[in-house]
Amino acid sequence: MSDDWQRYRRLSCRASETGIEVDVSRTGLDDPALAEIEGPMERAFDAMEALEAGGIANPDEGRMVGHYWLRAPERAPSAEIGDAIASTRDRVAAFAADVHAARIAAPDGRAFTDVLLIGIGGSALGPQLIDDALAGASARGGRMRLHFLDNTDPDGFDRVFRTIGSRLDRVLVVVVSKSGGTKETRNGMLVARRRLERAGAAFASHAVAVTGEGSELDTLAAEEGWLARFPMWDWVGGRTSVTSAVGLLPAALKGVDVDAFLAGARAMDEATRRRALRGNPAALLAAAWRRETGGRGEKAMVVLPYKDRLVLLSRYLQQLVMESLGKRYDRAGREVEQGITVYGNKGSTDQHAFVQQLRDGRNDFFVNFLVVERDTTRPGGDALAVEEGVTSGDYLQGFYLGTREALAEAGRSSLTIKLPRVDARRLGALIALYERAVGLYAELIDINAYHQPGVEAGKKAAGRVLELQLAAVDALRAAEEPMTVKALAERLEAADRTETLYHVLEHLAANGRGVTRGRGGYRATAREQGA
Amino acid sequence: MSDDWQRYRRLSCRASETGIEVDVSRTGLDDPALAEIEGPMERAFDAMEALEAGGIANPDEGRMVGHYWLRAPERAPSAEIGDAIASTRDRVAAFAADVHAARIAAPDGRAFTDVLLIGIGGSALGPQLIDDALAGASARGGRMRLHFLDNTDPDGFDRVFRTIGSRLDRVLVVVVSKSGGTKETRNGMLVARRRLERAGAAFASHAVAVTGEGSELDTLAAEEGWLARFPMWDWVGGRTSVTSAVGLLPAALKGVDVDAFLAGARAMDEATRRRALRGNPAALLAAAWRRETGGRGEKAMVVLPYKDRLVLLSRYLQQLVMESLGKRYDRAGREVEQGITVYGNKGSTDQHAFVQQLRDGRNDFFVNFLVVERDTTRPGGDALAVEEGVTSGDYLQGFYLGTREALAEAGRSSLTIKLPRVDARRLGALIALYERAVGLYAELIDINAYHQPGVEAGKKAAGRVLELQLAAVDALRAAEEPMTVKALAERLEAADRTETLYHVLEHLAANGRGVTRGRGGYRATAREQGA
Repeated sequence: MSDDWQRYRRLSCRASETGIEVDVSRTGLDDPALAEIEGPMERAFDAMEALEAGGIANPDEGRMVGHYWLRAPERAPSAEIGDAIASTRDRVAAFAADVHAARIAAPDGRAFTDVLLIGIGGSALGPQLIDDALAGASARGGRMRLHFLDNTDPDGFDRVFRTIGSRLDRVLVVVVSKSGGTKETRNGMLVARRRLERAGAAFASHAVAVTGEGSELDTLAAEEGWLARFPMWDWVGGRTSVTSAVGLLPAALKGVDVDAFLAGARAMDEATRRRALRGNPAALLAAAWRRETGGRGEKAMVVLPYKDRLVLLSRYLQQLVMESLGKRYDRAGREVEQGITVYGNKGSTDQHAFVQQLRDGRNDFFVNFLVVERDTTRPGGDALAVEEGVTSGDYLQGFYLGTREALAEAGRSSLTIKLPRVDARRLGALIALYERAVGLYAELIDINAYHQPGVEAGKKAAGRVLELQLAAVDALRAAEEPMTVKALAERLEAADRTETLYHVLEHLAANGRGVTRGRGGYRATAREQGA
Repeated sequence: MSDDWQRYRRLSCRASETGIEVDVSRTGLDDPALAEIEGPMERAFDAMEALEAGGIANPDEGRMVGHYWLRAPERAPSAEIGDAIASTRDRVAAFAADVHAARIAAPDGRAFTDVLLIGIGGSALGPQLIDDALAGASARGGRMRLHFLDNTDPDGFDRVFRTIGSRLDRVLVVVVSKSGGTKETRNGMLVARRRLERAGAAFASHAVAVTGEGSELDTLAAEEGWLARFPMWDWVGGRTSVTSAVGLLPAALKGVDVDAFLAGARAMDEATRRRALRGNPAALLAAAWRRETGGRGEKAMVVLPYKDRLVLLSRYLQQLVMESLGKRYDRAGREVEQGITVYGNKGSTDQHAFVQQLRDGRNDFFVNFLVVERDTTRPGGDALAVEEGVTSGDYLQGFYLGTREALAEAGRSSLTIKLPRVDARRLGALIALYERAVGLYAELIDINAYHQPGVEAGKKAAGRVLELQLAAVDALRAAEEPMTVKALAERLEAADRTETLYHVLEHLAANGRGVTRGRGGYRATAREQGA
């Protein structure tokens, strides 16, 4: 009997209710490593218990961390919170049912056909994952078509509206922003509003808000009488918001079985609360991450689902893992520059792309394979024999096992998560598994996984760029002669920002925005072209 | 005047014909580093000259490396090759025109509406990038809708055919495989054939082959009388095949301006042949990569295009860079485990995802920003003012400059590639820029960038898995009693592969494929269910 088999038996763990299995037998975890991690993991279990009980697990922001309550309202630290969770779920379900039955309908009385979700980061990645992973996978699937504005790219906006085309008057617009102040989302909303108004529609009669109570967006939606408002709570972070209204509303509108999605997450939460390293799939995952990365992120996590409909998982996990773990300071205030890099795409496709480097090149990663036991989502899919006794699904599994083998031969580590199938229940469970693993790993390395202080710096610097732009246009308008970028920077007392100013001016000039570059430098034009 | 401005002036380089600028001023490159790299870069220029002249630049496979000739047939080392390139281009253009005009049409005489491209790795990534980046971007854009089978996932096949839906009888199928022996592509082709035949259509009257002359696929296409065959040459690698028929045919069918695409690549080739480190954008790029990664891939390249339509670029570059550079041995046979990890998505979206780690966490990367001067592809896009004097495009630029600034403050490096706009010409040029940078960098680190020996190991191991599967089913059919996985492994003299066998049996059982697991172990069922 082979060592692989013994290691697999020892180092894999199945969450019985959902049938999801975590197999870390091809990582560097061994008995000494497991023994060494027992104590730290006990403390991590303690910390997660305190977190779930309503402790201020995000002290920098003075917040509780409550995404686990979303699947178990009875665990919420107060009846008020539990009731808010349960009633929001009910309201989401009722709203989706009303939309599907055209009781809530477009102004002309016809049913809404499309959903335009406007949000970015945690407000979009979960809905995008659900949309792609569960397309056509449930009996109720595919009711409405989802579209996303998840950036502030004018050309990107245009692409989405071209896809929507003539169905614009039957679009339900869901604006998702906790604070209501996220600029990308605000911009997307203004564009959607303008588009609808140009088409003669009142924005409010198409719009739904998912936002913090009392936020700027909430106030606007209330004042204008939007179709509905759903809450985002300060104890749910964006990257763990998929089981709140953020994920549930688009899922329900799409026809996804939201109850199964929540039940799957709940079942995985239960399986991953077990205080037993070997018997807890999330603990085993976190232990493997620590072992592989030295608890310092020394190796990247390459996410390779052998299933097309899980292709967005790597992007979802990029946010969940890197935004949670990528921190400068630990909780004791020591500078640690932590993190685990996540990237990936899908197998076996990537076998023909970057797997060459994984096998032969830098050994600075471990692979997280994801495999699905059932080849087809619907009976009568394309699992036909491509050779005597061999289907395309057998090939897919063969390439997974073969790639894993080829990596192991070359001394590269991997772990595998196996799902019985891809459905709402397993997707909810899978997300909950990673959420818990991130939580446990953050405890092992003693960092706050629930804030994102580094995000602010970029936003503030962007604000300063826009201020510089406005000041530059004003100064050019006031000037009588063309000005070089250096002269203008000096005029604005921003000589140290000459390079930034140059890019700003070039951008204005390239877009006919009231600035031209000619002999002698930049000057203001009479008016913006096409503004 | 600021240091940033001086560095930008010194360390940026614009390719005048296409207006594409490479700015490496925010990397660690400085005068000593540039001086140090002058000599090695001279030798890299020599090597690229020899390569372009038809040297055997891929000695392991005994092949020339000729993708640069595809945009300059007059540079090909023989008139025969030059003629083949030129005539293939002409045939591609004529074929696409015939399809658009329905001179080549579906069997019922109606025009083809959709293209189903079946290919994987280099046979799909370029067409996918073109499809997404140039959607609606050219006057002729959007003529036909493209779909891809780029894996061997039965459920994934099913998803694509559901999207095609009732237009199946108007689908032109393009099968792309150099050898014709790639299993994923073969499987996709068999599924497409079955689908069409079930619908009463003859596969051959829908099918086009892009393949090596005399390959298995070429022979099949000739025998069956497919609509057309286009060549893949052994001197063009998959990951640099986008300017061959592999990329040109789907681009032309889509309505992309193929001549502009090639002209852009050609212009960039000319700009990057210059033997001047500072005046050659590809050389500057390769020098920055070496400086940032220590010539050992010590930092990952994070690709962040601030433009939705370039979101697939990171995946394209993952293949181009990692498959080219991820090598175990250098050309002297020393074990080097080289490579540069590439990942990314798009800005400013990722600001709300993994940029937290980039700014605060592990400093093990450099960012490759891509920015586009023109905000909108079509006049009258969504560049409306979202505040007085500020558009959503200004925000996009502001977030780019802000994020770059925030990274620089934290000591993180970045470089920027600026495009005047995204169109066929600039996309061709951008790809050529990276191709040349990869070629030069490979010379600097002395590796063969044009083979992929590590890919074979996974394929061979997969083949062994499928053999094990067939043997296991045979043994179970011959057995009179159920067998445990251990007993069956011993029967097959594969005790060291017990774990693999277990996964194979579970997969068969989960899919009703003639094996069940019950009391006492696995047994063969009378027949496959639903086969």
